[in-house]
Amino acid sequence: MLLTNARLPQESGTIAAVDVAISHGRIQAITPAAGRPGGIDLGGALLLPALVDGHVHLDKTLWGLPWRPNSGAANVAGRVENERLHRRDLPPVQQRGAALLRQMIACGTTALRTHTDVDDAYGLANFHATMELVASFKGQADIQVVAFPQSGIVTRPGVADLLAEALREGADLVGGLDPASIDGDAKAHLDVVFGLAQRFDRGIDIHLHDRDPGGNAQLRDIAARTIAIGMQHRVTVSHAFSLGTPDENDFAATADALATAGVHILTSSPSAGPVPPVLALRARGVVIHAGSDNIRDLWSPFGNGDMLERAFLVALRQGFRADEDIAVALSLCGDAAALGLPARRIAVGMPADLMAVECETLSEAVARRPPRKLVTKAGVVLARDGRYTGA
Amino acid sequence: MLLTNARLPQESGTIAAVDVAISHGRIQAITPAAGRPGGIDLGGALLLPALVDGHVHLDKTLWGLPWRPNSGAANVAGRVENERLHRRDLPPVQQRGAALLRQMIACGTTALRTHTDVDDAYGLANFHATMELVASFKGQADIQVVAFPQSGIVTRPGVADLLAEALREGADLVGGLDPASIDGDAKAHLDVVFGLAQRFDRGIDIHLHDRDPGGNAQLRDIAARTIAIGMQHRVTVSHAFSLGTPDENDFAATADALATAGVHILTSSPSAGPVPPVLALRARGVVIHAGSDNIRDLWSPFGNGDMLERAFLVALRQGFRADEDIAVALSLCGDAAALGLPARRIAVGMPADLMAVECETLSEAVARRPPRKLVTKAGVVLARDGRYTGA
Repeated sequence: MLLTNARLPQESGTIAAVDVAISHGRIQAITPAAGRPGGIDLGGALLLPALVDGHVHLDKTLWGLPWRPNSGAANVAGRVENERLHRRDLPPVQQRGAALLRQMIACGTTALRTHTDVDDAYGLANFHATMELVASFKGQADIQVVAFPQSGIVTRPGVADLLAEALREGADLVGGLDPASIDGDAKAHLDVVFGLAQRFDRGIDIHLHDRDPGGNAQLRDIAARTIAIGMQHRVTVSHAFSLGTPDENDFAATADALATAGVHILTSSPSAGPVPPVLALRARGVVIHAGSDNIRDLWSPFGNGDMLERAFLVALRQGFRADEDIAVALSLCGDAAALGLPARRIAVGMPADLMAVECETLSEAVARRPPRKLVTKAGVVLARDGRYTGA
Repeated sequence: MLLTNARLPQESGTIAAVDVAISHGRIQAITPAAGRPGGIDLGGALLLPALVDGHVHLDKTLWGLPWRPNSGAANVAGRVENERLHRRDLPPVQQRGAALLRQMIACGTTALRTHTDVDDAYGLANFHATMELVASFKGQADIQVVAFPQSGIVTRPGVADLLAEALREGADLVGGLDPASIDGDAKAHLDVVFGLAQRFDRGIDIHLHDRDPGGNAQLRDIAARTIAIGMQHRVTVSHAFSLGTPDENDFAATADALATAGVHILTSSPSAGPVPPVLALRARGVVIHAGSDNIRDLWSPFGNGDMLERAFLVALRQGFRADEDIAVALSLCGDAAALGLPARRIAVGMPADLMAVECETLSEAVARRPPRKLVTKAGVVLARDGRYTGA
């Protein structure tokens, strides 16, 4: 396959007009645009690495269903209960999740991590459905599955065993949720999570919503536990709102602990309430990347699976206006390495996970978020002009 | 003109399939959808009142120009200087502003308030250009022009006289900017602003970015001055970040003063930093409405003039998830009455300023922000399928 007439941002900051030859799933050559016939003419569209969504819940989405008013409560516990109540009435995960995956791929996402609920009400049903869904998209997206104890572990008999069974059956990571505020016993909760990770040699991804200083104390505990079992750069904490603290000393101590332990931070960059400060964390060596979190589900009516829109929301939330900062926001939304996957670059020899966007610069792509002109996964075209075409 | 097969939200919360007959710029009849031929078939799209942008800067925008990296500083004073420096190189306001107005109308906005810079570097040049621009869109959008002292009044000799001249020549309102932090003398600044308003019998719209408690003290001063000259509901304070204070007593005292004085609050709902809390202000009787603020200009690379996107950003920023709250976010983006214009409703006898959106419910319109299928101003079609068609 030959992509012609693309515009490729260079490390120097300039943009070069190029043709890109692809075969066997990889970029074979990048040459100055030469008006070659027979390829896919990108008409001067900007060529960027395909996007990465570090945190979604494919099993929760209502994507593709008739609009449903939000019936959730104002706090996490209430939203958990709301979902437990209404979930039985929904069509299968395979249908809803597939509708969302098609949308995400159409927006240029070809790698993602999904948290799938494992709890005492539904057992492994969501997990099994998610694994089927993932298998059906093999080759179109690299999908990591987190066995996620959405209703808690310590307070829910049997959930620890269900998590173990999910890991035995192939879950890529073990999840956790607000060890102190949901389960009421941070030590017991983290003992289970880290114990399972060690036993099955799998990564960890913990939801932590706590906003008070206790949140940062838990982050430092997680950092210490990560070092203790030698899982540097295989542990992520999602949300970590407490890093948005105004206490500079508490922030610095926590960020340094995370950097030393290689604990990654995932933000969906919500606009209300404190969030982890992106530039300050990076300055201290912490890996921070981004994900959609809830996409039109029983938790939130918002979200659309477009990581260019997520980059826009990250930039707004962090007060970014300069090109170099907006580039950081976008990099958070394409950070495969943060998930332990090969880093993405448009260079000879790299996998051809690409997207083309009709705009002048990377900042314009984030500001304007036009439909993706082309999306490829390992050189296979999966979407054109904003529409999923399939493999 | 007949609009057929529209879906119209009812006060009861249900949605009715209707046909809408329009003539002489007004809605003449709303009848159950009857499959009539010959009209504009909206195919079941939701019919909503056209949108209102309470705060833009048409004279600043770079809309329609090649992408330009942001060169602004991190604070208001630095951004003012950056703009004074680079403005001379830009194409005329009439060209840039017209490009943005076409975009705004295509997104369903048919009334707006624009702040046009009056300062000692450019005199009345921006103002005159804006008045020309406004005249050229007569009948397509109701545009209020604020004579806005972007560089200050007290510290800039001659600006007070320039503001007076702008009002004499037809500016609808007199503006102000950070009386304490930019001009360094809140009393002298407000004396000029309120003096001009009284002398020319025009409304007031003051930018107030101050975040410290002094911001709320200024709001209470503005409220007292508003009552003193009998200008209730003709004074707006834009931004008013200090209302996002965690000090409940300070908030309550300030909100009550604003409500009593009929001082309106305009928010663009930025994601970084504190913002006025929408529901708490409304609960105390304060009128709060929304606007885009900067749209792709020397201040910010972001913004697109779409007030449905603004409603989305308001909802995110305020943590809204329930339908009734999302309806509030949207109402802030269509509040003509807050500008002193007739309130908008889809009812017999009302002006036909309408838009049609392909979605099921009002919340979905905000969450998904699809292109507007149709936009009318006083019954004249101005945009179809997301594209400005003109009168």
